[in-house]
Amino acid sequence: MALIVQKYGGTSVANIEKINNVADRVIKEYKKGHEVVVVVSAMGDTTDELIGLMKQITDQPNPREFDMLLTTGEQVSIALLTMAIQEKGYKAISLTGSQVKIETDDHHSKAEIMNIDNSRLRNELEEGKIIVVAGFQGINSQDDFTTLGRGGSDTTAVALAISLNADRCEIYSDVDGIYTTDPRIVSSAAKLDYISYEEMLELANLGAKVLHPRSVELAKSYNLKLYIASSFNYRPGTIVEGMDEMEKRKSVTGITYDKDEVKITVQQVPDEPGIAGQLFTRLAENNINVDMIIQNLQHNKENDITFTVNKEDLIKNKEYIMKVSNEIGSDGVEIDQDVAKVSIVGAGMITTPGIAAKMFTALGENKINIQMITTSDIKVSCLINADDADKALEILHESFELDKQ
Amino acid sequence: MALIVQKYGGTSVANIEKINNVADRVIKEYKKGHEVVVVVSAMGDTTDELIGLMKQITDQPNPREFDMLLTTGEQVSIALLTMAIQEKGYKAISLTGSQVKIETDDHHSKAEIMNIDNSRLRNELEEGKIIVVAGFQGINSQDDFTTLGRGGSDTTAVALAISLNADRCEIYSDVDGIYTTDPRIVSSAAKLDYISYEEMLELANLGAKVLHPRSVELAKSYNLKLYIASSFNYRPGTIVEGMDEMEKRKSVTGITYDKDEVKITVQQVPDEPGIAGQLFTRLAENNINVDMIIQNLQHNKENDITFTVNKEDLIKNKEYIMKVSNEIGSDGVEIDQDVAKVSIVGAGMITTPGIAAKMFTALGENKINIQMITTSDIKVSCLINADDADKALEILHESFELDKQ
Repeated sequence: MALIVQKYGGTSVANIEKINNVADRVIKEYKKGHEVVVVVSAMGDTTDELIGLMKQITDQPNPREFDMLLTTGEQVSIALLTMAIQEKGYKAISLTGSQVKIETDDHHSKAEIMNIDNSRLRNELEEGKIIVVAGFQGINSQDDFTTLGRGGSDTTAVALAISLNADRCEIYSDVDGIYTTDPRIVSSAAKLDYISYEEMLELANLGAKVLHPRSVELAKSYNLKLYIASSFNYRPGTIVEGMDEMEKRKSVTGITYDKDEVKITVQQVPDEPGIAGQLFTRLAENNINVDMIIQNLQHNKENDITFTVNKEDLIKNKEYIMKVSNEIGSDGVEIDQDVAKVSIVGAGMITTPGIAAKMFTALGENKINIQMITTSDIKVSCLINADDADKALEILHESFELDKQ
Repeated sequence: MALIVQKYGGTSVANIEKINNVADRVIKEYKKGHEVVVVVSAMGDTTDELIGLMKQITDQPNPREFDMLLTTGEQVSIALLTMAIQEKGYKAISLTGSQVKIETDDHHSKAEIMNIDNSRLRNELEEGKIIVVAGFQGINSQDDFTTLGRGGSDTTAVALAISLNADRCEIYSDVDGIYTTDPRIVSSAAKLDYISYEEMLELANLGAKVLHPRSVELAKSYNLKLYIASSFNYRPGTIVEGMDEMEKRKSVTGITYDKDEVKITVQQVPDEPGIAGQLFTRLAENNINVDMIIQNLQHNKENDITFTVNKEDLIKNKEYIMKVSNEIGSDGVEIDQDVAKVSIVGAGMITTPGIAAKMFTALGENKINIQMITTSDIKVSCLINADDADKALEILHESFELDKQ
């Protein structure tokens, strides 16, 4: 008997037919004698509908009230999925984030899990029940509902699996697994059977929307194997696991892109020590995540500092960014929304020289201009014009022979 | 400075425009220097929509999961109303039943409030916030969400007003107050300025849908004055208060009807001592509320027992009722859904003989057949054919001169 945590995303529970399908999948595991904890997101468009109602009132909701509103979405899903399981003749119970006691910090809309009290989960499992948990949500020390932000349901599933010392953690969505690149853009994209946490992290951070980086980080810390697959078929998916458990890999595993970043240039910053530190500290204070950074420092001159942030962060914090850039004595702020980040990722890169050079050459030969570059041990990212993104993906997928899995 | 509890029903918050209207009304009181606690129901059709989703899965939901589903309705309302108040520049906070700690018993869908821990309410009021509380819901000792059943939001408002020792408890809906009878049926129906708890209780029990009997009972126990008015205008409503505070009244205050009852006849019950007790004990065990009862006992014969219950109770418990009637040796059960209960209510009735006789005569003269009769100190009810209900209302309203307020 194993303890399995399964997570189903919003598209997997988008309507009653799909909810019944998830119920069948859950019961299938339960009937094998396993204990099953299921984490679900809000049904399909529910969150958008709630936000639509809200936008008729305000564009800048109080974050606590925003979470109060949004957490109803998963609560509806868990009640309906539980009823569907019960209707098929099996014992089940739904629990919200507050009922499980998924304790988080106070950062509404971006809360982090501090602790999970699994006593109720244990009790309900002992009574032979399938447990259906609301993803994406928790409770802070004041008993207020919090949400975990993007990919929060994945994080809920991974955190529960760790807390319960689960044997498996399975993340189901509308995609079959992790691909070498986006199959909607590059038709020869191939599915990976295995991927390391590190590669997955780079892919997740870089825009592969299958799994949120936070959930991968968490799984990595506790060495929890993840299984990524589709909820609409039983085709094998992708296993995410530690690098040491995996056979030697190609130098590049996957190619990804991100169109959700914007390039911000803080112009004519005075050349004083600590200016960059001051800028990015002030941005961090407002929870703005900065991705790529370029500062081309020339002494005794005023210089530009260029960085990228998520589009959503820009929309929320535009005035704040203007204020901060003013504080540090900048001349003005230039914003370019028309950019995309293309990245190659691979654990084998560390031991294979010349990978970055090969990427730059391939893009250059195809007249794609590189605006910014960042690298890590297992990835190289280039910021390019958004219009070039699809073409870049094709070129790189072919250059690194990813169609030949 | 007064502490005011206001309650707004589902039609009062049916859309964003109406939510903004409620926000304005709440702020109006707050600006006078009062402390305001607002209780709201789910938006208009939300509950029906949730039940619609559920019915695609099951007609007999697990009661705990049903409450899990339904409680999301008010949670959406409180978040949106709070945002609307905040958007207009005032401090506000929303609280669910579980956050207020409205502790109830375990009877899902019909829970009773055991205790309210008002410490959080007090704290938030001290911080100058308008508090928006989800009506209709509470939490049991296992941390599970419960709902209070019909009229639950009224009960929430009254219970909060009592717990906080509020100066006023105002119940707003889409009606202007309490009328002598249903103005949609009898055009000369007149609004009452005052009504006693006792009369209101009879009216509420008998189908005047303005205020749930439980909330009136509760208000009566603590001698809490209620104010019933419309949320769509500022016309004076009706005050519900103790009988001793009121001037001498007419013998009949109001006439009401209830089409939600069904007549059940348990046929050919053996004439043994304790049979009726056994029947109604078994019904009570399943939380079936019985209203009118007739047993025309003839010794040494088998007899029928006839009683009425709410239609909803019948639907939920039909099989159970069949089983119980079988247990006690009955021949069969006959169900008549085509009935209506018409009642006259008035505190002055106690001291005015002949009121019941006048009612029976008026109905009889108009060829309306009376199937069952019950009386109390301040009301007389007749069960008649449903088709005769509107006519009966007109006749009785005229006979007792209620148009001459």
